[in-house]
Amino acid sequence: MTPYTPPTQDQLLAIRVNAGIDEIATSEKYAHAEADLVEAIVEGVGQFAAGEFAPLNRIGDLEGAKLENGVVRLPEGFKEAYNSYVEQGWNAIASPEEHGGQGLPFTLSCNVLENLGSANMAFCLLPMLSVGAIEALEHHGSNDQKAKYLPDLVSGKWSGTMNLTEPAAGSDVGALRSTAVPIEDGEHAGKYKIAGQKIYITWGEHELAENIIHLVLARLPDAPEGSRGISLFVVPKYHLNDDGSLGNHNDLRCVSLEHKLGINASPTCVMSYGDNDECIGEIVGEPNRGLMAMFTMMNNARINVGNQGAQIAERATQQAISYAIDRVQSARAGSPDKTPVAIIEHPDVRRMILRMKSLTEAVRALLYYCAGQVDRGTIGDADAKNRAEILVPLLKAWGTDIGVEVAGIGIQIHGGMGFVEETGAAQHWRDSRIAPIYEGTNGIQAADLVTRKLSLEGGDAMISLFEEIARDAAHETSLAALATDCAHVVIWMRDEASLDDRLAGSVPYCTMAAVAVAGWQLMKQAEAVANGAAPSLSETKPVSVRFFLDRIVPEAHGLKAGAIAGSDLLYSISTEKLAG
Amino acid sequence: MTPYTPPTQDQLLAIRVNAGIDEIATSEKYAHAEADLVEAIVEGVGQFAAGEFAPLNRIGDLEGAKLENGVVRLPEGFKEAYNSYVEQGWNAIASPEEHGGQGLPFTLSCNVLENLGSANMAFCLLPMLSVGAIEALEHHGSNDQKAKYLPDLVSGKWSGTMNLTEPAAGSDVGALRSTAVPIEDGEHAGKYKIAGQKIYITWGEHELAENIIHLVLARLPDAPEGSRGISLFVVPKYHLNDDGSLGNHNDLRCVSLEHKLGINASPTCVMSYGDNDECIGEIVGEPNRGLMAMFTMMNNARINVGNQGAQIAERATQQAISYAIDRVQSARAGSPDKTPVAIIEHPDVRRMILRMKSLTEAVRALLYYCAGQVDRGTIGDADAKNRAEILVPLLKAWGTDIGVEVAGIGIQIHGGMGFVEETGAAQHWRDSRIAPIYEGTNGIQAADLVTRKLSLEGGDAMISLFEEIARDAAHETSLAALATDCAHVVIWMRDEASLDDRLAGSVPYCTMAAVAVAGWQLMKQAEAVANGAAPSLSETKPVSVRFFLDRIVPEAHGLKAGAIAGSDLLYSISTEKLAG
Repeated sequence: MTPYTPPTQDQLLAIRVNAGIDEIATSEKYAHAEADLVEAIVEGVGQFAAGEFAPLNRIGDLEGAKLENGVVRLPEGFKEAYNSYVEQGWNAIASPEEHGGQGLPFTLSCNVLENLGSANMAFCLLPMLSVGAIEALEHHGSNDQKAKYLPDLVSGKWSGTMNLTEPAAGSDVGALRSTAVPIEDGEHAGKYKIAGQKIYITWGEHELAENIIHLVLARLPDAPEGSRGISLFVVPKYHLNDDGSLGNHNDLRCVSLEHKLGINASPTCVMSYGDNDECIGEIVGEPNRGLMAMFTMMNNARINVGNQGAQIAERATQQAISYAIDRVQSARAGSPDKTPVAIIEHPDVRRMILRMKSLTEAVRALLYYCAGQVDRGTIGDADAKNRAEILVPLLKAWGTDIGVEVAGIGIQIHGGMGFVEETGAAQHWRDSRIAPIYEGTNGIQAADLVTRKLSLEGGDAMISLFEEIARDAAHETSLAALATDCAHVVIWMRDEASLDDRLAGSVPYCTMAAVAVAGWQLMKQAEAVANGAAPSLSETKPVSVRFFLDRIVPEAHGLKAGAIAGSDLLYSISTEKLAG
Repeated sequence: MTPYTPPTQDQLLAIRVNAGIDEIATSEKYAHAEADLVEAIVEGVGQFAAGEFAPLNRIGDLEGAKLENGVVRLPEGFKEAYNSYVEQGWNAIASPEEHGGQGLPFTLSCNVLENLGSANMAFCLLPMLSVGAIEALEHHGSNDQKAKYLPDLVSGKWSGTMNLTEPAAGSDVGALRSTAVPIEDGEHAGKYKIAGQKIYITWGEHELAENIIHLVLARLPDAPEGSRGISLFVVPKYHLNDDGSLGNHNDLRCVSLEHKLGINASPTCVMSYGDNDECIGEIVGEPNRGLMAMFTMMNNARINVGNQGAQIAERATQQAISYAIDRVQSARAGSPDKTPVAIIEHPDVRRMILRMKSLTEAVRALLYYCAGQVDRGTIGDADAKNRAEILVPLLKAWGTDIGVEVAGIGIQIHGGMGFVEETGAAQHWRDSRIAPIYEGTNGIQAADLVTRKLSLEGGDAMISLFEEIARDAAHETSLAALATDCAHVVIWMRDEASLDDRLAGSVPYCTMAAVAVAGWQLMKQAEAVANGAAPSLSETKPVSVRFFLDRIVPEAHGLKAGAIAGSDLLYSISTEKLAG
């Protein structure tokens, strides 16, 4: 596995052009996000990730997380790297200042995760999950809970987890069965006894942080059925004494780790709460409003998963370029000179490399465009808030699909060596495959897009996005046509299609829409570079953008037929016949 | 992992409609391939594969092949299953009758492999590689060699391997450095001392067969540089005594096994020949004509790899359908009834299932169309021979890409369970990933398509294929338009494009062309079913074909831009700048 070289200049370009950091920094809230500080953070975290996280990626895959007598062990080096991550303050970038954070824009926390995740996707899940816990407590916790939990979560001294899934409650969170019973008397009066088993709990148990703050969804005894009967609880691994020191171990444990396809250094835990009926938690926010509380942070969590598409694509691309430059094989076709050349000189390998690079930069452009809209929303721009709502499923679904595609091309460029685990190309591909699944499968994202997001402003929020693209891209025929196609799909879905029709076309439409937005944002990058931004990218950026506009955008045109094909065909065959 | 249910009826339909077995059986050579026998073989091998090979797929992945003191060990059950495969005569289907084979059409040997490979892709590589050795000896061996080696290779008592690749000679086989020195005197006079190291040797060492017949490419002392200086040698693991019994172990050994992403039960060996300067081999065919000899069997080998796309797609589809019927999650969207349903009832899951099914059947249709053209070529149809030449890269490249895509959708349908190894969905995806790489990467296939295959009859062989499709599909607008687009690409490539331009567009063109041919062949299946063929498919086939024509074919339209985009953009950026 090659080292990780942070793509600092491309990240800065995206943060400036697509997120619009300079404009965001004109707000009072983010006034301290000045150009110098932004640059220092992007450069700093890139160096940190390359130096401390990246060297652990291969060993993390090979040795993985191991459960030994209830304790999860990580390979050597993880503890030290995590400590130095906390010491250097990277965990606190975007958290509120009153709890020890730096209060910087979400855009910059995206960059922290991007660098950490490119360096080591499995390891990066630890801070990424903590962010979710921080946001949940920040928005829904009591003042007392914030004071108790946030400072150490923000610094990274403690980590956090999200406990939603149960064996019979995956995509349908509302079906969960874990319980929370109020405690009437005694030392824990006012708190709750938590009981149940949760699965797929990322970094649910480990010893890198001193305490783990579990956020757990469960049902109160009198709760209504379904998603309106779910409450949120904070359940620390170690109880807190009144003086803030750590007390006894709570009645919760990691039962087992999943044997997974990838991200082996990330312990995916089956967690059991209340085996001895003594698991104590506090309710966060109102009873039966737990799912609402989860939704608050879901958007950012989905952006963070979409980000993983860019992360793995970047790392896989670097690996493939390095291999294609080193590997000498065959002379150029048709060349009178029979001397073998580096395979990157062969047209089809070069096409693959450019495809990887172009797709990676496109996901990054979409990521920061989306992050910038979140930040604009935070400082009061209602249109940006709606825009972000639309962009989130595009980024999460398409970004993670691209992560898998690019990592797959990476294997292909390695030839036989790509199928052998020692190069690391295969690890990227294995790791990439989780991102289209968790935090709402990509099918769920597409469903969200054609239902909740489509209905924003009666469809106009979405249509105006594509009108804006078509206008801006008047000189880019293929992109303008794609945006117009997207608008037509939206109008068809809104005015003519049944709900089943919309869902049947949701995934192809989601891909089309994401390509249109990403192409538009890349186009803006190319324009900025032509006007002197990022001189070090002046040779490469026009080419990767051209590649996207001329070859990737036309591919997306082919998806329209599937987007508007409707659902009748799908149900014209019985389930029994499908079973064979 | 669910059991394997052979798709016997769909296989028989493809063998009849796409291969045209009835017409092939009108020839003298294949007169014994009567309908009853064909049916008995397809049913029989399907049952055998399901009963004996399929149950070993998961344990083969978990335990894998292991090298212990120079001997490769397979998990329990492999030896017994292989023995019963040999006893039942499945290895001998298409081999010449004079060496103990049944002399049946290649189409039927494709079906044997299809069933074995769906059941257990890694295990199926053992007979698949033997086929290559049989063909090489059959076409290029001396009568003495045929008599010595073929009977036991044909029965399966012995297995065969192909030794091409060396660390510095992968796609560029001509760069290989292994040597063969003539032996002047003594017991082995007239034979050769072989020396060198070969990598990626599939089933290069094992104890399931009594002997292993290695076919090894090496250079004679006076050989010219490059591919015109390569000769082919037969190098048995155990020498043969004059009475045909096994003699001493030859000076060759398995040095190590690769740690791979998938097909773990298939030992991928680093082989060392002549460590003690005593590795004895015989030349096969003429000196320096070894690569030509390899080319003889390469077409069939590539078809067999394309077949693996259909194999893994079929198994992954069965697994996904089974899961989607069992897994209950969420009520139907918009339904007043809030009862959760099997996920196969949700529109997007159903779309994914139909996509898997439709793509799988499309690869199968293309496979048997191609196999049938090979058989027609064998019985003297020159047009069919050319047609097969064109179809081979389409099947190998697109078929294996589809294998990966379908296995990936299979993971997605499983949600979180897809990323956990225990369901087996992940194994299919890992296993599938080798097929686009070996037997000539898919990039090499596409290069072959736009160079050697494009030039057949000055381009007319290829153009007439698409004209035929456009004519037959006059009532299928999208398919007809795709075929016309393909013909335009061919004309552009032939008349206007530089060699680099052709290579730069080779992969998108290859995909377009494969979709056009597969769609056409599916259309023929649908017509046959409408006319009463395969009554048990009368409900499903029209739907899977419609899905392909209405949703997959339009996607392929989007590839034309990339096919004719040329190579200038790829080289407008320097390699140094790409390196970052």
